[in-house]
Parts: sequence; C-alpha cells; structure tokens
Amino acid sequence: MTSDHLAPVAVLGLGAMGRALAGAFLDAGHPTTVWNRSGGKGEDLVARGAVLAPSAEEAVRRAELTVVCVVDYDASQAIVEPLADALAGRVLVNLTSDSPERARTAAAWADEHGIAYLDGAVMVPTPLVGGPQALILFAGARPVFEKYESILKALAGQAAHLGEDHGLAAVYDLSMLDLFYASMSGLVHAFALAREDKVAATALAPYLNSIAAILPDIATGMAATLDSGEYGGQEANLAMMTASVDHLLHVSRDRGLDTGHLEAIKAVADRAIAQGHGADDWASTIEALKPKT
Amino acid sequence: MTSDHLAPVAVLGLGAMGRALAGAFLDAGHPTTVWNRSGGKGEDLVARGAVLAPSAEEAVRRAELTVVCVVDYDASQAIVEPLADALAGRVLVNLTSDSPERARTAAAWADEHGIAYLDGAVMVPTPLVGGPQALILFAGARPVFEKYESILKALAGQAAHLGEDHGLAAVYDLSMLDLFYASMSGLVHAFALAREDKVAATALAPYLNSIAAILPDIATGMAATLDSGEYGGQEANLAMMTASVDHLLHVSRDRGLDTGHLEAIKAVADRAIAQGHGADDWASTIEALKPKT
Ligand SMILES: NC(=O)c1ccc[n+]([C@@H]2O[C@H](COP(=O)([O-])OP(=O)(O)OC[C@H]3O[C@@H](n4cnc5c(N)ncnc54)[C@H](OP(=O)(O)O)[C@@H]3O)[C@@H](O)[C@H]2O)c1
Ligand SMILES: NC(=O)c1ccc[n+]([C@@H]2O[C@H](COP(=O)([O-])OP(=O)(O)OC[C@H]3O[C@@H](n4cnc5c(N)ncnc54)[C@H](OP(=O)(O)O)[C@@H]3O)[C@@H](O)[C@H]2O)c1
Repeated sequence: MTSDHLAPVAVLGLGAMGRALAGAFLDAGHPTTVWNRSGGKGEDLVARGAVLAPSAEEAVRRAELTVVCVVDYDASQAIVEPLADALAGRVLVNLTSDSPERARTAAAWADEHGIAYLDGAVMVPTPLVGGPQALILFAGARPVFEKYESILKALAGQAAHLGEDHGLAAVYDLSMLDLFYASMSGLVHAFALAREDKVAATALAPYLNSIAAILPDIATGMAATLDSGEYGGQEANLAMMTASVDHLLHVSRDRGLDTGHLEAIKAVADRAIAQGHGADDWASTIEALKPKT
Repeated sequence: MTSDHLAPVAVLGLGAMGRALAGAFLDAGHPTTVWNRSGGKGEDLVARGAVLAPSAEEAVRRAELTVVCVVDYDASQAIVEPLADALAGRVLVNLTSDSPERARTAAAWADEHGIAYLDGAVMVPTPLVGGPQALILFAGARPVFEKYESILKALAGQAAHLGEDHGLAAVYDLSMLDLFYASMSGLVHAFALAREDKVAATALAPYLNSIAAILPDIATGMAATLDSGEYGGQEANLAMMTASVDHLLHVSRDRGLDTGHLEAIKAVADRAIAQGHGADDWASTIEALKPKT
C-alpha cells in the first residue's frame, strides 16, 4: 500500500454530506475527483483542488477508492449500477444511510461484479467530518477495511469496523437513532411540562442533564442484563416504574399536553407486567416489544 | 441556630426511602425518631441509635424537623393532618413524590396551621441517599430552606432550592422523569432493534453511550431556543429528522417490533410540520404538544 497517503479518491454525490466528505479528502491531501447528478455543485471544491468529473464513470476511473453518499440507496444504486465495469477491481464505499437489507443487497451486487465493497454510516453532522471526533461506522470484509483504513481515517478520526455483515453499519446507525429520537422527544416533552408550571427551559436544563449523565451507566448495565437474559429488579422494578409513568401521564394529560409517547411506553410496560415481569427491571420490557411468533 | 448540627429530627414512613433518609440522619449524628404505620419496620434503625416512636405524634413532638416520605400524598396527608397541633411552630418536610397540585394544597394546609413547610423530591436511589452525589430538590419559602439547609444536607450533598412555589419540586421531578422514561424506552428499543440483526447489547452499548454523551449539549441548546422562541434549523431541520423517524419506524415494523413510541413521536412531528415548522429545528415540536385552546 505505497499509495496509501495519496491514493486518488472520488466522491459521488455533492449534497451537504458529500461536499463535507470531499473537503475532508482534500484537506488530507488526496487527489480528489467529484461528481454530482445535477450541475452547479462542487465549485468550491474545485477551488480547493478537486477535479469535477463530467460523468460518474470518469470520476470512478480516476480513483482507487470511490465514496458514494446520496439521499438513499435508490439513488446510490441508480448511480453505481451502470458503473459495474468501471468499478470492477476498485473499492466502493457507500456512505448513504438506508436499511440493513439495502446494504446487504448492494453488497451482493458488488460481489457479483468483483467490486470490493464497504457500507458505512456517517454519525456526525457535516462540520465534524474529517475531524478527530467524527464517527463513521463501516461494515464489510475486514481485510478491505484494513487495507483502506488509513484513507478512510481522512474522513473520520473514529472509523469503526463493526463486522463482516454489510448490514451492520445500518443496524448500529438505526439503533443509535432510535435512542436519539426517543430522547429528543423526551427532552421537548420535559421542557413543555415545566413550561406549564412557569419553569423556564434554561432553569430546567441542568437538571435534565443530570438525567442524561446517568444514561451511560444505565445503558452499560442494561446491556449486560439483556445479553445474560437475567433481569434484576432489586433496585427498581417494572411495576413501580410503570406506576410512575402512569402518574406522569396523568399530570401531562391534566395540563392538556400530548401523551402519545407516554401511552406507548406504558402499553409496552403493562404488557411486560402481564407477562410476569412486574418484579423485574426495566430491561425486561424488551420481552413485550415483539409479539411472540 | 445553635442546634443545627444536632437538631432532633423525625422520619415518618419507613419504606425503602424513609429508612434510607433516617439512616442518613443517624450517620450525620442527629437524634432521630422514626415511625411507620405498620409495625415490624425500623428495628435496624433502632440498632443504629434511632428511637422508634409509638405514634406519629410522639415522633413529631420529639423533633424540631420532621420528614415524611410515604407512597403518595394521600398517605402523607392521612398521616400529617391529624398532627396539625403537634406540628404547629415546627418544620415539616414532605419528601413524598406526587403532583405539583398536591404539594401546593398541602402547603396551603400547613400555612393555615402555622407549620413551616417544604416540599421535596428525592432524585436518587436509596443507596445514594446521604452521600455527596445525592440530589434532593426542595421548594417553599427560601428563609425556611436556608434555616434548615444544614440539616437537609445530611440527606443530600446536593440539596437544591428551586423556588417559593411549593409545586416546583414536583414539576422538576416530573420533567426529569419525563426525559428518563423516554430515554429508557428508547434504550430498550434500540437494543431490541440491534438484537433482530444479531448484534449483542454489549457490542451496541458503547455506541448508544456516544448518543447519551451529546444529549447535555443538545438540552442546553434546546433550552436557549425554547426560552427565546426562535427556532433554528440550519444544522438539522424537522422535515429531514421526521423522515428519519419514519425510516426507523418502517425498519422496526418490518422486524415485527412494537412501534408505538415511534408513531407517537412522528405524529407530534408531523403536526409541527403541518403548522409550518418543517424548516425549524426539533425544539419546534413543542408547538404541537398542546392543542391550541
Ligand atoms: N447532512 C447530514 O448532517 C448527515 C449526517 C449524517 C448522515 N447523513 C447521510 O448522508 C446522506 C446524504 O445526505 P446529505 O445531507 O448530503 O443530503 P442532501 O444534501 O439532501 O443531498 C442529496 C444528494 O443526493 C443526490 N440524489 C438524490 N436523488 C438522486 C438520484 N435519484 N440520483 C442521483 N443522485 C441523487 C442529490 O443530487 P442532486 O444535487 O442532483 O439532487 C444530492 O447530491 C444521507 O443518507 C444522509 O442520511 C447526512
Ligand atoms: N425507593 C426509591 O428508590 C425512591 C427514589 C426516589 C423517590 N422515591 C419516593 O419516595 C417515596 C417513598 O417511596 P418508598 O420507596 O419508600 O416506598 P415503599 O418502600 O413502597 O414504602 C411505602 C411507605 O408508605 C407507607 N404508606 C403507604 N400507604 C400509607 C397510608 N395510607 N398511610 C400511612 N402510610 C402509608 C408505607 O407504610 P406501611 O409499611 O405501613 O405500608 C411505607 O412506609 C415515594 O413517593 C417514592 O416515589 C423513592
């Protein structure tokens, strides 16, 4: 890998994220070719040294490693499938976010065509791309990841290889978003509840942060519980916690606030209690998330 | 306040939390009298130096400051209302969790009877009570809080006074629980989603923790946005985020997982978008949490 540091690369798709990725390659000194479906994008990248290719195929042929990052896999496949010949023997890294299934299907297609393929997911907003704190998840053959890791590090200080299954980047991505959106919704609801009693959001925020601060320990403990399948419940049990959710639900309803997410949380917890988990800990609600098949 | 350090105190209610509170008073050297509705509780506290009173009234009469901590305000009022005479001129601190309304009503009752009254909420599990990291929220007249703060510090290294409105401890308590349960539900759902694709919870946990780690900055920024009422949206807008929730919802549904909380989150976000907040940030969903009256 004598060309590791200056390997020519291509970026297909110059949306917000594609531009950030191309910029990170340029900052690291890689000869960078860029392309976008519609024109008028990438002029700033050209000013910074990028070559704007007239076609996606031309971009791919100029590069050892090609990154595609567009809105979804319908778009990425529309771009790369006609390029099978040009990509054969080269490396394609798809940083488009979509489902595990789509990533696996695309990987099978790449395999058929002799294209080394990694799927990935960018876990940070564009301004962090290329920096030491940038996290990008990768999945696919480990030897491919290791061979190109130094190039991929130009995009993300934290380039993590999750495993050989090409769907894994999407799995981790979606699971992280799952926690993210649940917490975002809880944050806004908490601020709304406080506002009803004339408490300013800035007064409440430090206290909400003390809740956020205990989540990592809880997540670590819950993970061990879930993998072992042995639910505790000595410190706080599901029956008591569900009563607390119910109380919160009633206070929220009294104030005329939406209680949809609280009702959904309580419905799952009630189901777990009905299954016999009342004396177990909150992790046992996982048993009620999937109707038995 | 010459008796600050060794003021005699009483604890009414010897459930898990009442016992922890009494233990913390004993550890700090306060002469401590305890009482519980039903017998057979508190022997261990007596062994550590507490006096077990034959009646709640007797306990109150032996103390300068009385803490009551039972299951809810129905229970705490059932205990303290018959003791109005004994409590007159003394201090009552109610650490029972309930609604802001119940705390305010109890405060009005105490005021009528010349009882100095603080409402509070214990924000940590029992093993932390009395320690430096223990957070207990207090609400009520500031002079009362300040006069007894050094006694209350025996219970919690972090004894926070939130304001004069006696309902405030419950407001903060409920708002913190709101974020807590939303996050707990998100955590379990995230682990469930990963499990469907054979990812162990312990493998996922460090990545979920990187989400937890960004919440404090988000909460602080969101609080400033909410208090100003000026929604941004440059970095990430509601329309894009809602599409991401929808994607998550479909992947979860494909796997046969419960999607109740995701549907509830999306319903609120969709309503906010319909109100014209699609280009605003996630904080704008607060506008959709309360139907206009
Ligand atoms: N932006 C972020 O903060 C962020 C963070 C993490 C992950 N991501 C992920 O990164 C990916 C790209 O996001 P983005 O923010 O760059 O999106 P964006 O700014 O909306 O750009 C969308 C890109 O997709 C292209 N595209 C759409 N449909 C196409 C089609 N049918 N054929 C060819 N190209 C098509 C667009 O080309 P045209 O210009 O021709 O329309 C454009 O280059 C997404 O999967 C997103 O989830 C983004
Ligand atoms: N445990 C925790 O980790 C924790 C954490 C934070 C806050 N809290 C709050 O602390 C408070 C007490 O919780 P806990 O865990 O100590 O509950 P607990 O262990 O279930 O004890 C309940 C207490 O309430 C008493 N009680 C119930 N109904 C009564 C009535 N009608 N009249 C008189 N006494 C009655 C019980 O007396 P009997 O023994 O006679 O039944 C017992 O002393 C609750 O508001 C809870 O939300 C608890």
